[in-house]
Amino acid sequence: MSDLDSMREEIDALDKTLLELLKKRNDVAKKVLAYKLEHQLPVFMAEREEQKTERLRRDAHEMGVDPEMVEDLLRIIMASSRATQSQHEFPMATDEPRHVLLLGGDGGMGKLYRRFLERSGHQVSSIDKGNWYELEQLAPTIDLAIVTVPIHVTLDVIERVSAKLPDHVVLADFTSNKGAPIQAMMQAHKGPVLGLHPMHGPDVPNLSKQLMVICPARDGEKGAWFGEQCKLWGMRVVEADPDAHDHAMDLVQGLRHFVALLHGSFMKDQELKPQQMLDYSSPMYRAELMMTGRIFAQSAELYADIVFSSPERRALLTQFFKHHERLAAMVESNDRAGFIKEFEAVTDFFGSFATQALFESGYLINRLSDRFA
Amino acid sequence: MSDLDSMREEIDALDKTLLELLKKRNDVAKKVLAYKLEHQLPVFMAEREEQKTERLRRDAHEMGVDPEMVEDLLRIIMASSRATQSQHEFPMATDEPRHVLLLGGDGGMGKLYRRFLERSGHQVSSIDKGNWYELEQLAPTIDLAIVTVPIHVTLDVIERVSAKLPDHVVLADFTSNKGAPIQAMMQAHKGPVLGLHPMHGPDVPNLSKQLMVICPARDGEKGAWFGEQCKLWGMRVVEADPDAHDHAMDLVQGLRHFVALLHGSFMKDQELKPQQMLDYSSPMYRAELMMTGRIFAQSAELYADIVFSSPERRALLTQFFKHHERLAAMVESNDRAGFIKEFEAVTDFFGSFATQALFESGYLINRLSDRFA
Repeated sequence: MSDLDSMREEIDALDKTLLELLKKRNDVAKKVLAYKLEHQLPVFMAEREEQKTERLRRDAHEMGVDPEMVEDLLRIIMASSRATQSQHEFPMATDEPRHVLLLGGDGGMGKLYRRFLERSGHQVSSIDKGNWYELEQLAPTIDLAIVTVPIHVTLDVIERVSAKLPDHVVLADFTSNKGAPIQAMMQAHKGPVLGLHPMHGPDVPNLSKQLMVICPARDGEKGAWFGEQCKLWGMRVVEADPDAHDHAMDLVQGLRHFVALLHGSFMKDQELKPQQMLDYSSPMYRAELMMTGRIFAQSAELYADIVFSSPERRALLTQFFKHHERLAAMVESNDRAGFIKEFEAVTDFFGSFATQALFESGYLINRLSDRFA
Repeated sequence: MSDLDSMREEIDALDKTLLELLKKRNDVAKKVLAYKLEHQLPVFMAEREEQKTERLRRDAHEMGVDPEMVEDLLRIIMASSRATQSQHEFPMATDEPRHVLLLGGDGGMGKLYRRFLERSGHQVSSIDKGNWYELEQLAPTIDLAIVTVPIHVTLDVIERVSAKLPDHVVLADFTSNKGAPIQAMMQAHKGPVLGLHPMHGPDVPNLSKQLMVICPARDGEKGAWFGEQCKLWGMRVVEADPDAHDHAMDLVQGLRHFVALLHGSFMKDQELKPQQMLDYSSPMYRAELMMTGRIFAQSAELYADIVFSSPERRALLTQFFKHHERLAAMVESNDRAGFIKEFEAVTDFFGSFATQALFESGYLINRLSDRFA
C-alpha cells in the first residue's frame, strides 16, 4: 500500500468517526425535543442557536480550525436536526385547543397548516368544494376561520363564508396580497379580522425560519395566539401595514416573476439552451440561471395568477417597461456615461446593503459551486 | 442543573469532539498535500471526491444519518481543505519551468495568476503602464505572453506587444469576449495563438472548481501545457468556439448585468429600500435581492465596460427591449392566456433543466436561510 493510500484510509476512518458523532448528536437532539414537548417549550430558539454558533466559532479559532467552515457545518447540522423535529408534535400556544376551520383545506397550504395545527393539539376542520354544506353545522364551534383559496376566488369565498360565521369567530386569510382581502373581511364580517401571508410554498420541509406576515385589522388581540403558535413552529413573525406590504409584494412577486419569464423566453428566442449555457457559466451565472429556471418547473397558471393578480401590479409592470425604455435608450446611443451615473445612483440608494449582498451572494455561490459545479 | 441543561452540555461536548476531529482531518490533509507536491500529482481530483462522497452517503444511510446532510458537510470540509492547500505550492505541468509574461500584470487578474504560476515553479514577468520599456529586453526569453488588460484597450495592447514578440512565443489573452481579440492576435502575431477566458473575478480564494475557457486558434499544441497547468490548480477547463462563446457571453454578461441595473434602479424609482424589502422576503426573494445587490458594491466602470463591450452586445440588448415590449403588451391588455402560452413554451424549451434548477435553487435557498435569514 502506498503512502497516499494509507493517508486516505486515515481520512476515511476520521470520516467514519464523524458519522458516529452525528448519530450520537441526533440521539441527544431527539431527547431534547421530547423534553421541550413535555414542557411546552418552543422547538427552535434563535438566541440559543446564535450563542451556540458564537461559542463554537471561538473554540474553532483557538484550535486553529477555520471558524467560517465550522459555522457552516453547525448551521447545516442544526437545520437537519430541526427538520427531523418537525416530523413530530409541537407545543400548543393556548391553554385549551382551538377549533380552526380551513377554507380551501384540500389545497397545498391548507393541508400543510392542518398538519401543523393538529400536531400542536388543535382541532381542525376543512371545507373545500366537495363539502361546503358542512359549514353551517360547523360554524357555531369555530374559533378561527382561515381562507386559503386561489387568489382570484378569495373575495367571493370571504363573502360566502362570512354570512355563516358567528361574530366571535376570528376571520383570517392566507392571500399573498393583503389590502383587498382585509377590506372584504372587514365589510363582510363583524368580528375580529386578521390578514395573514405565509411567505413560503406548500412544499417546504418544515416551517422553521419561514416568514409569517401578520396584519391585525380588528380586535387583533383575539387572534394573537395564532402568531404565538407560528413562533412555536419556529417561524419568523412580522407585523405589517397592508398597503406597504402590497406595494413591496408587487415588486417581490409581480416584477420578479415577470422578469423570470422575460429572461427565459428571451433565451428561447435566442436559441440559447440552458444546458449549453452551463458550459460557459461561472458559479454566479449558474446561480442566476437556476433562479430563473426553477420558475418553469412550476405551474404556468400559478404564475399568471401572481403576475396578473391586481390592477396595481399590472400598472407597476407597465411603469417597469417605461423604465426599461429609458435605460434601453442609453444602450442604443452607447451612452456609457449615462449608464455609470445611473449605476452610481443605485449604489448610493442601496447603501451598505450592497456590501451585505456581495457577502451573502458570495457565500451562496461558494455553496453552489461546492455542491454542483 | 435541569435535564435540558445537561442534555445541552452533552451536545456541547459532542461539538467539541467534532472540532478535534476536524483538526485531525486537517493535519492528515496537509500531509496528503505535501505528498502530492513531492510526486507532482494534481491537488484536486474530481473522481476521488465523487467516490468519497458516494461512499460516505452509503455509510450514512446504513447508520440512519441523513445522507443529504452528510454530503453537505463533506463538501464544505473538502472545499475548506482545498482552500488551505491553495495557499502553498502546486505541481508544475511541464518538465522545465516556462517563462510567462503578463501584460497588465498590476491588475487583479494579473496578480492572481502571477501568484499561481510562481507557486507552480514557473518564471513570471510583468509589464504594466510603468515599465513598458522592459518588454524589448524580456521578449527573447518568453514562452507565453498573456494580455490581461481592461477590455477597451485589449486590441491596442495586442498590436503593440505583437510587434516585439519573437514568432515562437504563444500569444494569449484573458479578455471576456473571444472573437475580436483572437482575430487581432492572429493578424498581429505569426506564432501560436490561444484565446483564454478565466470565468471568475480576481477576488476568488483559490482556483479550484473555477472555469477556464480555452479557444486554441493557431498551433494549439504549443499552448496546451497551460490548460494542463489550470487542471493542476483544480480548474475545470472547457474548449470553445470563439463565436459560440461570445454569443453566450452576450447573454451571460451583457444581459444579466443590464437586468441587474434595471432592477436596482427601478427599486430606487419606487423608493423600495432593500433593507425594507428583506422584512417581507422569503428566502427565495432574499437570494434574488442578493444577486442584484452584489452588483452595486462593485465598480460602475467595470459594469459599463461589460455591458457596452461590443456592438453585438448592444444589439442583443436592443432585441431584449423589443422582446420586453411584446410581453409588456400582454400585461397591459390583461392577456392571461397569452402569458400562460408564453410560459409553457419556455417550460418546453428548458426541458429537464427546469427540474434541475428547482432542485439546485432549492438547495441554495435552504443554505441561505440556514445561514442568514
